[in-house]
Amino acid sequence: MNIAELQTRLRDFAAQRQWEPYQTPKNLAMAMVVEAAELVEIFQWKTAEESQALDEATRTHLGEEIADVLLYLLQIADHGGVDIEAAVERKLGMNAQKYPPVSR
Amino acid sequence: MNIAELQTRLRDFAAQRQWEPYQTPKNLAMAMVVEAAELVEIFQWKTAEESQALDEATRTHLGEEIADVLLYLLQIADHGGVDIEAAVERKLGMNAQKYPPVSR
Amino acid sequence: MNIAELQTRLRDFAAQRQWEPYQTPKNLAMAMVVEAAELVEIFQWKTAEESQALDEATRTHLGEEIADVLLYLLQIADHGGVDIEAAVERKLGMNAQKYPPVSR
Amino acid sequence: MNIAELQTRLRDFAAQRQWEPYQTPKNLAMAMVVEAAELVEIFQWKTAEESQALDEATRTHLGEEIADVLLYLLQIADHGGVDIEAAVERKLGMNAQKYPPVSR
Repeated sequence: MNIAELQTRLRDFAAQRQWEPYQTPKNLAMAMVVEAAELVEIFQWKTAEESQALDEATRTHLGEEIADVLLYLLQIADHGGVDIEAAVERKLGMNAQKYPPVSR
Repeated sequence: MNIAELQTRLRDFAAQRQWEPYQTPKNLAMAMVVEAAELVEIFQWKTAEESQALDEATRTHLGEEIADVLLYLLQIADHGGVDIEAAVERKLGMNAQKYPPVSR
Repeated sequence: MNIAELQTRLRDFAAQRQWEPYQTPKNLAMAMVVEAAELVEIFQWKTAEESQALDEATRTHLGEEIADVLLYLLQIADHGGVDIEAAVERKLGMNAQKYPPVSR
Repeated sequence: MNIAELQTRLRDFAAQRQWEPYQTPKNLAMAMVVEAAELVEIFQWKTAEESQALDEATRTHLGEEIADVLLYLLQIADHGGVDIEAAVERKLGMNAQKYPPVSR
């Protein structure tokens, strides 16, 4: 996935719709959590087992919600001055330190 | 960003900690929205303007929260059988149809 | 507001629809955050000022989302064994200690 | 629970800390969803069964999060011009129409 290219497309998309004044990191964070909750809604009444055996239509719906959250994350990073790939590597390193592997 | 490679690293990370039983899409969706809200928390008392002029420490913090949400999204997609890149392209197409550009 | 009476009504409502198997605290918490995000959605593209001057239709909509979140909170407390009024008083006391008043 | 009295106490509390400029419905909605997600966090790795058998410490923690969400709801209603009790009765009526009881 080419993050910089997607961010450019999202900027262009917003510009063509004159959405720039709305695109503050604060507003984008709100929109992102709304989409995150729509993803949660898919699973709210499902059992653990049902959530592991999604039918085709639900998988398509899930893909839409994942995309919605991801696209807002890319915009938050773009407007907030965050390098996503560097942030991901850094976080993976922090997690490895915080949670040592279980010895067997 | 190599999504498939990141998903493999996240699977290995979970396996080494014996987290597999917890990694249902339902649980991962809950964890994802918790991280999404931690990202929102950064901006809750900031004005729109302040959210557009983050200092270095806040930008680092924001990067961590973006990474947390993204890493859970990758795991939800992996365990839920979603191809993220295809879902993103599909969603961008849907958005282009739903929101026509403003003519000038 | 009579909390115990509302909780009884909500239990009866769920029983009449055979929803009891779904009413775990885990599921109710997910449903609650979904409604919380629907409330956030009302404000996501509004300025601070606009959020302080809602029109009648938006105020009605806001009331519905507030009620949705509140009704799930009552059910979580009921099924989770929490006395809401005691919890509120305890939390107000904790907040008073955590945030001392500003002297003038 | 005396909602109007609690709302007055919360207004006084905020005034004594000079928090009024931050108390827009938009900001309060963000703070509310953050607390809602902290409640979700309690249950994220628990099974359905575990969520139904909380120990004393978890029940206390749950009470704190319920109170946090509720206190923000009261403030959103207060600052947004919503009568909570009327909204709850209205919503209960809407739900009764939307979801007819199951006949046996």
